Amino acid sequence: MTPAATESPADLVITGCAVLTHDDRERIGFAQDSAIVVRGGVVEEVTGAGAVAGRAAGEWIDARGQVALPGLINCHTHAPMVALRGLAEDLPTEEWFNDVIWPVESNLTARDVELGALLACAEMIRGGVTCFADHYFAMDEVAAVVAGCGMRALLEEAFFSSQGAEGRERSLAFALRHRGAADGRITTALAPHAPYTVDDTDLAATARLAHEHGLPVHLHAAENRDQTEASLARHGVTPIEVLHRTGVLDTDVLIAHGTGIVESDLPLLERADGRTAVATAPRGYLKFAWPHTTPVRALRDIGVPVGLATDGAASNNSLDVWESMALTSLIQKSTEGDPRWLTSRQALHHATLQSARAVGLGGSADGIGGSVGGIGSIAPGRRADLVLVDLTGPHTQPVHDLAATLVHSARAADVRTTIVDGRVLMRDRELLTIDVPEVVRELGERLPALVDRSHGRRIQEYGT
Amino acid sequence: MTPAATESPADLVITGCAVLTHDDRERIGFAQDSAIVVRGGVVEEVTGAGAVAGRAAGEWIDARGQVALPGLINCHTHAPMVALRGLAEDLPTEEWFNDVIWPVESNLTARDVELGALLACAEMIRGGVTCFADHYFAMDEVAAVVAGCGMRALLEEAFFSSQGAEGRERSLAFALRHRGAADGRITTALAPHAPYTVDDTDLAATARLAHEHGLPVHLHAAENRDQTEASLARHGVTPIEVLHRTGVLDTDVLIAHGTGIVESDLPLLERADGRTAVATAPRGYLKFAWPHTTPVRALRDIGVPVGLATDGAASNNSLDVWESMALTSLIQKSTEGDPRWLTSRQALHHATLQSARAVGLGGSADGIGGSVGGIGSIAPGRRADLVLVDLTGPHTQPVHDLAATLVHSARAADVRTTIVDGRVLMRDRELLTIDVPEVVRELGERLPALVDRSHGRRIQEYGT
Repeated sequence: MTPAATESPADLVITGCAVLTHDDRERIGFAQDSAIVVRGGVVEEVTGAGAVAGRAAGEWIDARGQVALPGLINCHTHAPMVALRGLAEDLPTEEWFNDVIWPVESNLTARDVELGALLACAEMIRGGVTCFADHYFAMDEVAAVVAGCGMRALLEEAFFSSQGAEGRERSLAFALRHRGAADGRITTALAPHAPYTVDDTDLAATARLAHEHGLPVHLHAAENRDQTEASLARHGVTPIEVLHRTGVLDTDVLIAHGTGIVESDLPLLERADGRTAVATAPRGYLKFAWPHTTPVRALRDIGVPVGLATDGAASNNSLDVWESMALTSLIQKSTEGDPRWLTSRQALHHATLQSARAVGLGGSADGIGGSVGGIGSIAPGRRADLVLVDLTGPHTQPVHDLAATLVHSARAADVRTTIVDGRVLMRDRELLTIDVPEVVRELGERLPALVDRSHGRRIQEYGT
Repeated sequence: MTPAATESPADLVITGCAVLTHDDRERIGFAQDSAIVVRGGVVEEVTGAGAVAGRAAGEWIDARGQVALPGLINCHTHAPMVALRGLAEDLPTEEWFNDVIWPVESNLTARDVELGALLACAEMIRGGVTCFADHYFAMDEVAAVVAGCGMRALLEEAFFSSQGAEGRERSLAFALRHRGAADGRITTALAPHAPYTVDDTDLAATARLAHEHGLPVHLHAAENRDQTEASLARHGVTPIEVLHRTGVLDTDVLIAHGTGIVESDLPLLERADGRTAVATAPRGYLKFAWPHTTPVRALRDIGVPVGLATDGAASNNSLDVWESMALTSLIQKSTEGDPRWLTSRQALHHATLQSARAVGLGGSADGIGGSVGGIGSIAPGRRADLVLVDLTGPHTQPVHDLAATLVHSARAADVRTTIVDGRVLMRDRELLTIDVPEVVRELGERLPALVDRSHGRRIQEYGT
């Protein structure tokens, strides 16, 4: 029980908690009364709590009554849009874009983006999100925020064809400039906005650049059925067919939403040469009254991972991935007319390994046994991105089925501690790296200028 | 600024908060920097924060940065079923009832019900729920818990026709015994389970007893479309037509769910002689993959209030009325294909005045101007049932539209203080009337006996 004199102290030991595990077939389980040993930002050991008694560690967390999960991953958001949360309510998609969001975004300054990103990261850390895929503008600011606050992120500078070649070049320059930054916590991608705002020439050029530079691509496509129908009417092909014919499907591509994916798109997605994934953010689809949600079951059948997401808070109203997890389960049951489908364990698989793969961080072996690096699982060799969830509250008791408790009863506010690369970013609900009141104060001062629409400009036109 | 020497101190003054208000057309608004003065369990005054400076009060709450709302009302639940939370997951309705819930409920003891009710009330108080309508067994225990913990409740002893006349008589005896108990915080109703478990003779007898004793009726009806179709096939009438022909629709009736209400039922509901209301608990409908939700828009068009509910935690997995409020808005938009429908202000109207009316506590004038008693609105003369919600968290900032913030961004855990009849039941998230760890400990000891199904019994058979 005494550490060997030659053994250097671990950086962090978490003990007494249940740990969410994946077996060699990736089935979700829970190891009770366990301990997690972290060294150099990596999970070194997952063992019984008794096995670490007396172990030397730089930091020691007693997590009895809590569950350790892989940190949640927000696979598609526009973090700085928290500044616009609640500004454009109860509107159809087109009016939301054309009448409010895109006019307001023409006012955006780098400082607005920075403050928005700080507020968003604070919200995500408090909600147990350790990694997010962000698709926005002035992304140098977001990269600086990520570096400072300690989160992990896949970052991209979005562009439209209306910006000319400069947009595409800026997206590439950003991706090359920040790739591997913040001790490797920042990865990057190319980010054409969507097939309805980026033409085939730019999409094809993006695919070539992705191959040339070894970068993934993250874009919106087939967001809703209207877009698919408009694409068919205008070009004779679906948005997914556009990605196919422009070569984007041969890159490692993360497709946001995909509620407009149709039957004929599935073989293209299945045969894609790259690592294809879809991010689902079901709350917004309900709020915009879109007629479909992401076809999760069809995508599972062809082996395409579906990661969980919130989209931006201007449509979703929060960056709450717990809610996305619960809604994904509920809406999938409802849509498929099958209460046995998308069980809590399936939802947790989406939240963990499928989300990790969606953002390109599934680990080198892309499996559990022997994988190196990667996130989405608490296992030796994986990055130590994890959260501790308190289940002692009356709304999470008693526990008959821990998976069901986590998916259907637990809430974002039950996360007590958030850890990225072994560094504690929130301890007992106290944020350690972001000063929220100061961010809220300055953002509040800037809001009147940000939301002014008297100029009549907008950054882009939405017409599907 | 100094209180007059003759003025006795108020019991409670809350100051510095925004207050949710209803105008004389019941439109939702917010009065900023306000104060609420409570005396004798009743709201005496809602005024500017400045107007109460120096006022003498037994208790003073500084609520700056918070919003005061009418306490949420859970219009249909089975509180003690929190003991079964997570026990029967990912199952169709029939298997959920016949294979798990009804076998387990044959083990229920009074102590199980009491502990379940304590845990449920703790969850609800923490989630800002001040009143609930409970439909279960061994309800004397629930009444004792309500009396002790300080909540308000509409309580009913449920019965099946399979229990013979005794069930109906017990339901009546309970209603008469507890009506007006706990200083008037307990009201009661008669509670036939549903038209598929209670025959027409018993329903007609219930209607007569309701009239004779001045009691409302609370039951499940047209829960889903299968029940409506089964009723049509078996009896040639819909469940709502059954309520009509047995006289139940001429009582003050609260109908749970109603997702199986069809077009032809609407005129019957519109012409009903009693005060008719429906409780909607949309999460469970998704989880069971029912094909429809409560027809909120059609019910609004015929003037039937729709209150918010969670149903029991064995299907809903929580008693989180905030979630019911958000889901009602989202699912209504999606179902109607209309993003402009069921706005945040409409959702708040359901959560406040419509829910109060659903549980029969809309106040004597059943309106705002001049109404006496009642809940669901913070106005002079109304009972002081209210909650204080902290909006300083990063997930609720900035605030562009307070109604949207409350419905789409705030969470149950943002409730800091819960007050019923002017008594503080939770202060700064500390529960003052229930010892959760002790309840969880004893309930945990009892669970093995409670969940045992080896006996092969069930309390009832589900067959729609």
